[in-house]
Amino acid sequence: MQKAYFQFQTISRLGKARAGVLKTPHGDIKTPVFMPVGTQATVKAVTPAQMEEIGVQILLANTYHLFLRPGADLVAEMGGLHQFMNWKGAILTDSGGFQVFSLGDLRKITDDGVTFKSHLDGSIHQFTPELAVQIQEKLGADIIMAFDECPEPTNRKNNEKALERTHQWAERCLKAKTRSDQALFGIIQGGIFPDLRQKSAEFISSLDFPGYAIGGLSVGESKTQMLQILDLVDDFLPKEKPRYLMGVGTPEDLIEGVRRGIDMFDCVLPTRLARHQAAQTLHGRINLMNAEHAHNPNPIDTECQCYTCSHFSRAYLRHLIMAKEMLAATLISIHNIFTLVELMRCLRQSILNNNFEEYTTHLLNNLKNPTNQ
Amino acid sequence: MQKAYFQFQTISRLGKARAGVLKTPHGDIKTPVFMPVGTQATVKAVTPAQMEEIGVQILLANTYHLFLRPGADLVAEMGGLHQFMNWKGAILTDSGGFQVFSLGDLRKITDDGVTFKSHLDGSIHQFTPELAVQIQEKLGADIIMAFDECPEPTNRKNNEKALERTHQWAERCLKAKTRSDQALFGIIQGGIFPDLRQKSAEFISSLDFPGYAIGGLSVGESKTQMLQILDLVDDFLPKEKPRYLMGVGTPEDLIEGVRRGIDMFDCVLPTRLARHQAAQTLHGRINLMNAEHAHNPNPIDTECQCYTCSHFSRAYLRHLIMAKEMLAATLISIHNIFTLVELMRCLRQSILNNNFEEYTTHLLNNLKNPTNQ
Repeated sequence: MQKAYFQFQTISRLGKARAGVLKTPHGDIKTPVFMPVGTQATVKAVTPAQMEEIGVQILLANTYHLFLRPGADLVAEMGGLHQFMNWKGAILTDSGGFQVFSLGDLRKITDDGVTFKSHLDGSIHQFTPELAVQIQEKLGADIIMAFDECPEPTNRKNNEKALERTHQWAERCLKAKTRSDQALFGIIQGGIFPDLRQKSAEFISSLDFPGYAIGGLSVGESKTQMLQILDLVDDFLPKEKPRYLMGVGTPEDLIEGVRRGIDMFDCVLPTRLARHQAAQTLHGRINLMNAEHAHNPNPIDTECQCYTCSHFSRAYLRHLIMAKEMLAATLISIHNIFTLVELMRCLRQSILNNNFEEYTTHLLNNLKNPTNQ
Repeated sequence: MQKAYFQFQTISRLGKARAGVLKTPHGDIKTPVFMPVGTQATVKAVTPAQMEEIGVQILLANTYHLFLRPGADLVAEMGGLHQFMNWKGAILTDSGGFQVFSLGDLRKITDDGVTFKSHLDGSIHQFTPELAVQIQEKLGADIIMAFDECPEPTNRKNNEKALERTHQWAERCLKAKTRSDQALFGIIQGGIFPDLRQKSAEFISSLDFPGYAIGGLSVGESKTQMLQILDLVDDFLPKEKPRYLMGVGTPEDLIEGVRRGIDMFDCVLPTRLARHQAAQTLHGRINLMNAEHAHNPNPIDTECQCYTCSHFSRAYLRHLIMAKEMLAATLISIHNIFTLVELMRCLRQSILNNNFEEYTTHLLNNLKNPTNQ
């Protein structure tokens, strides 16, 4: 059953870039794909109907947050995440690893797992690989993630230790998994260290995961370091499985990721930017609060086909921002998500059309020379 | 041109209740009608597309707020309110009267007009009847309102003086009006005093307004007093013109208003309740934050056909509230507005079907004996 569901088919390749289809119980996902983040079982300020209209195929939800509130048992009781949040498309849950490691002093790591204090009420909890899988099975996403340790990427000693744990925990996650209608993806760690990344890619690839994620990037290392790691791990990952670069979501990073064979991305950036009055376009980022937009009758992006750009001026969006109206976050989020979803659609098409390099050269040039601000 | 636009046709009467159609440059409005309030050129947390899906025919915007921010000139420059906020249906603007009188110590009234301090930055402004019309002509709503004085309804002396001013100002508004594609409605004041209300209804009716509003109610008087005034003014208002009861929006008040010949209502209640976690149904009001809803898989109202009730459980809505997610306000606002819009549609149908009394007796009984909380 799982094989049929999570089959990944590469339709076209151009260099390392791939256009594919990943089958899930909630639809066939055309890759490369960007996954908006619905941390607490909602993509902030956007309804599922709006997400569908944008063309979102798969979204991400956070195990750590949903475990604490409303609790995995409640979500299961309500029929699982899809039914709970009324999302008919596919869902991926992270393992909670990144969130608990981000708690800093509030968590303690052992080989068994991580003990941490809730950021909500200070209550003490422990995540183990087994529990992370169990929670994700209750949440019921289509794709679930192995529980990994995410150290700061530039400390070698911590990364060596974390790698051992991440590898042991990956095996424990595989053993703990019981549902056949979910795909468990493995995660490669190793910080900025090529030899550790190679070791991790080789080990995790040796386990039979239906997909592989690259974790621990976009968390403080340089852009060059990130791209070097992507170049490197490509050689050690099976070509026939989907690859997911975690937590990455600028247009530049998506383009460079796709160029290096990445199929899936997620990031809070489009919705977080929107709540901070910033619109993302393929011609640069725009702070809509700036007074210069007060009298501008044009949309955020005259070339954009999203609901926001089809109907609202920058002057109106700025007014909503100045008046502290919630609709501002909704409309800018819709635009920002659409921009990335549409970018991925165009990147895919350029792979199919054999003109990925020309297309992305043009895009990256626009992004480096913003005209839209 | 104006006659064709703002023709009001009564299709059916039952007692004092009327089912009609009011023609506007932005569509024929089936009455009785509830108008949601978009104070700052947005119905809080709801997109125009969602408003259209709900079946909203006409909405209200506030002259006072839009005058201060973003300014009537900017709205005019952007093509008027309809284009600015992307609302294809009809719009009514209030005159700013109620808002500036609500400022208390921040305003000073003379026969010429009202001087007031902005609640935003303390800047000093003056509204006169002429300026209120001029601003509303710039905003460009389909229906605009005369500038009136709204005193506390139970002080006779203040109401006597306010009545004189309101009447003089009504004449000045009529003279100031220049646009033929807008209808200017007159407003009746007089507080809770039957003789003042009669005098005001007679005087304002003697002026050639295409519609008449009853102001100064639902601001502190008893329910009985409000209904007595509605009973009384009916006799003195022309039957062939639309009547608008300002600022009223509980299901009970809408029913009692329609029963007394009111055709139009507006109120911030549905969206304000939504931002305070309360859902309005025709079986009572529900505080969705209550723990009792945590495990409830049912929608707010199993009989309701709105987007929210068709797709989301009380458990999910409560989760959004507890997690402080903006989507809560959006989804509950959609439900609350839909409830009143649908109520008006059903009231209209019951007038056409000759069963208004049976239908409303049933409704009022449900509202008095809430089963839904």
